[in-house]
Amino acid sequence: MTPLAAYHELERRFRRIANLDGASAVLQWDWATMMPEGGAGARSDQLAELSLIRHELITDAKLDELIARVESDGRALDDWQRANVREMRHRQRHANGVSPALVEALSKAGAKCEMVWRAARPKGDFKAFAEVFKPLLVLVREKAAAKGAALGLAPYDALIDAFDPGYTMVEIDRIFGVLENFLPGILDRVLARQDQRPAPLTLKGRFPIEAQRALGVKLMERLGFEFAHGRLDVSLHPFCGGVPDDVRITTRYDESDFAGALMAVLHETGHALYERGLPEAWRTQPVGDARGMSVHESQSLLVEMQACRSLEFLSFAAPLIREAFQGHAPVEGEAFEPANLYAHAIRVRPGFIRVDADEVTYPFHVMIRYKLEKQLIAGTLEVDDIPEAWNQGMKHHLGIVPPNHALGCLQDIHWTDGGLGYFPSYTLGALTAAQLFDAARRSDADLVPAIARGDFKPLISWLRTHVHGLGSLYDSRELVSRATGRPLDPLVFKAHLERRYLG
Amino acid sequence: MTPLAAYHELERRFRRIANLDGASAVLQWDWATMMPEGGAGARSDQLAELSLIRHELITDAKLDELIARVESDGRALDDWQRANVREMRHRQRHANGVSPALVEALSKAGAKCEMVWRAARPKGDFKAFAEVFKPLLVLVREKAAAKGAALGLAPYDALIDAFDPGYTMVEIDRIFGVLENFLPGILDRVLARQDQRPAPLTLKGRFPIEAQRALGVKLMERLGFEFAHGRLDVSLHPFCGGVPDDVRITTRYDESDFAGALMAVLHETGHALYERGLPEAWRTQPVGDARGMSVHESQSLLVEMQACRSLEFLSFAAPLIREAFQGHAPVEGEAFEPANLYAHAIRVRPGFIRVDADEVTYPFHVMIRYKLEKQLIAGTLEVDDIPEAWNQGMKHHLGIVPPNHALGCLQDIHWTDGGLGYFPSYTLGALTAAQLFDAARRSDADLVPAIARGDFKPLISWLRTHVHGLGSLYDSRELVSRATGRPLDPLVFKAHLERRYLG
Repeated sequence: MTPLAAYHELERRFRRIANLDGASAVLQWDWATMMPEGGAGARSDQLAELSLIRHELITDAKLDELIARVESDGRALDDWQRANVREMRHRQRHANGVSPALVEALSKAGAKCEMVWRAARPKGDFKAFAEVFKPLLVLVREKAAAKGAALGLAPYDALIDAFDPGYTMVEIDRIFGVLENFLPGILDRVLARQDQRPAPLTLKGRFPIEAQRALGVKLMERLGFEFAHGRLDVSLHPFCGGVPDDVRITTRYDESDFAGALMAVLHETGHALYERGLPEAWRTQPVGDARGMSVHESQSLLVEMQACRSLEFLSFAAPLIREAFQGHAPVEGEAFEPANLYAHAIRVRPGFIRVDADEVTYPFHVMIRYKLEKQLIAGTLEVDDIPEAWNQGMKHHLGIVPPNHALGCLQDIHWTDGGLGYFPSYTLGALTAAQLFDAARRSDADLVPAIARGDFKPLISWLRTHVHGLGSLYDSRELVSRATGRPLDPLVFKAHLERRYLG
Repeated sequence: MTPLAAYHELERRFRRIANLDGASAVLQWDWATMMPEGGAGARSDQLAELSLIRHELITDAKLDELIARVESDGRALDDWQRANVREMRHRQRHANGVSPALVEALSKAGAKCEMVWRAARPKGDFKAFAEVFKPLLVLVREKAAAKGAALGLAPYDALIDAFDPGYTMVEIDRIFGVLENFLPGILDRVLARQDQRPAPLTLKGRFPIEAQRALGVKLMERLGFEFAHGRLDVSLHPFCGGVPDDVRITTRYDESDFAGALMAVLHETGHALYERGLPEAWRTQPVGDARGMSVHESQSLLVEMQACRSLEFLSFAAPLIREAFQGHAPVEGEAFEPANLYAHAIRVRPGFIRVDADEVTYPFHVMIRYKLEKQLIAGTLEVDDIPEAWNQGMKHHLGIVPPNHALGCLQDIHWTDGGLGYFPSYTLGALTAAQLFDAARRSDADLVPAIARGDFKPLISWLRTHVHGLGSLYDSRELVSRATGRPLDPLVFKAHLERRYLG
């Protein structure tokens, strides 16, 4: 078989895998948005089956041979094809690191843990959660060790590598170390300055869900979200799912506060625009997929934090917000002026909940959990000791201790499906977002002024060229270097915080 | 391997197949209810992939060996297990009749045809439909011939056998022949009698969708639908999908007429109760599945036509209907009295649209399409000749000719996904419903009076015992005989029509 023939056979096989992944993505979206509680058992079995079949396809010995054949002589391939093979090999090595039995056991234990967590979280019942998380953690440790051995990585690095290829604890520790150096000082200065100024005017009113939704849809469309290729729904935890041609984002509404749902919509729209903008010619191929979770988070945070949590965006959005809630809130008053909306958007306040955190305190939430994850995988922390370790971390970094576990270690969904290794991506994403946005606005003096006119085309067009359209052609670090002219540098994030919060 | 060990391995393999089928069912539901138009391409690929993998699993040579092993010595098995093996063999023979390439081609051609049909139907554009239906029909004929050869059946019988095992053209022709003898006479007499009486009072009003939905939900719950295990949504064509532990039914609303949506809800609830009532111990096994499409249709028609299109049901429902539309319609008037609602429910009028047809004219719609299907598969009718043949059938049986194809041969979805062979089940289902309901009310004198009190327990309990809980233990014909004491007899349906419409 010629290398090119082998390559085409690989494309065919990975197309099958992508179809299974797409099916799973829709079933997972349904689980979180539509599925009645009593459907969980059957759905868990369906998803486990799809995982297992995917695993069978990707660990097929013939596939290994085909990759080896192309790797041995890639002269007939172009750059995209070569990168595609690299990504195929990466996935195949990850899959080969775990046995089919472990794949199935993880899928089922994760589904079970998630169901228990959904009930345990509102009650802050850590004991109930711990009971199902313990056996799941045993499986996750097993996966980390097995993948680590297969990939030549430390166990926790092997988990990170599945979400964010190329990043390791060494690199993350270095970056987080820089953050830990400047962030506490910035936080203190921001809070001190905030205290000297009058608090923003309260945004009083009752904000009907339908009006919030309509406002969200309007802004999504303005940003370039195509409803012929996606939906906006409701879930407990906002997320972006589906497939690039059918992107499903969610939010959750609170009728006493519209900003939370709206910011979540903008955040998830950032994810959605990335998915939708992935190279169309490479749909269903690994190289056509999103680069990794730090780049994915950078796209949501770039839209939410960099572009929309700005005076420019809020100058454009204020009239739409006023129109949306006319008759339900005193929208003509000063409280709904752009300046006051902006004061709310950049309000900094140490709090218990990560997803509600401002951008200054957010990285602390990530660092706390990152440290715990490393210890959980290393075996130096056990499940029963999580609450204490969590509370100590909160006290150390933010000076507050959650009054219950619902506001503490039970708040997030990630551990419940065994997704350890994901968390660092949030903060890597925030740093990447700052650096990408900085490069984008330097490249086009009208980019930020355009946002104030509700024109996102310059920004989205820059992202299409430098991020979205590249799929997984480069690794995350090279992508950042190429787009911005230098490696990821936490000091760009620092400069952003100083400009916005202390400028 | 002992026969029992082989049997257990078969159960394991069919559990995998059931998981794939369940995944496909949810993806299909999503397609019809949630999916944005632009997602169709990716979804079609996902569904084709799942069909193909299912086909690979079921045509595995090892599976054939395992079935043969158990068939050769089934002494260690109980009745349910033996029936399970019989159903496994039935499915395996159907799957083996077609090649993987044909499975994939059918799945994709069907998805394409459906998308074109959705756009062509409102415009009555038969030409656009014909263009994609022709290649699909070629594939369906190929499937029918291949399966017929594998099963020792005539090609069209092989298609029927996939939906309704045991029924053949010979049997259906006999049954439809009896119907053709008595139905025209009954129709004439019913119409003549109707003409002599005053028309029912018009149900004026604007019936808000939300109020219609709430009324539907209330009646579904009363009938025993569990919302912890199912949903009610909207689609172009009402249907029942999902899996037994997560049953998804749909309807469509018209704000100027609540009866259509409501009757569709009751109809689909009948399907849903069947799915939900299937034997729990046999979930994921072939013997635990619904018996076939005529029995399935009997369950929807039993609830809608036999139980709910009655004065008893409407006496119970009238106050709920009045409550639902209070303020939107003159609900206190005589028009909303049970007697007038009943007069509407049993109004007979030859019309163009099958799903809107009354129970007297409905079988004619089925007979017309059944005749066309036989000819299309036999090759004695070509696609371009469908409109004329359709209109001739309508003229012959109902004395009317549709003014356009949207109201004619383009009205139904079944052909668009290649589902020829399904249609006879509708009328077989209507006859089965009449006979089952007749037996149920004879067995319990309080069953019908209970319905007037809104108590459906006696009816549902009888169905649980005699139909739902039996899954596929018996074939359709034996199921009817056991439940009612005699084989399917069209004269029971005749007696029902005479009692309701001429009594």
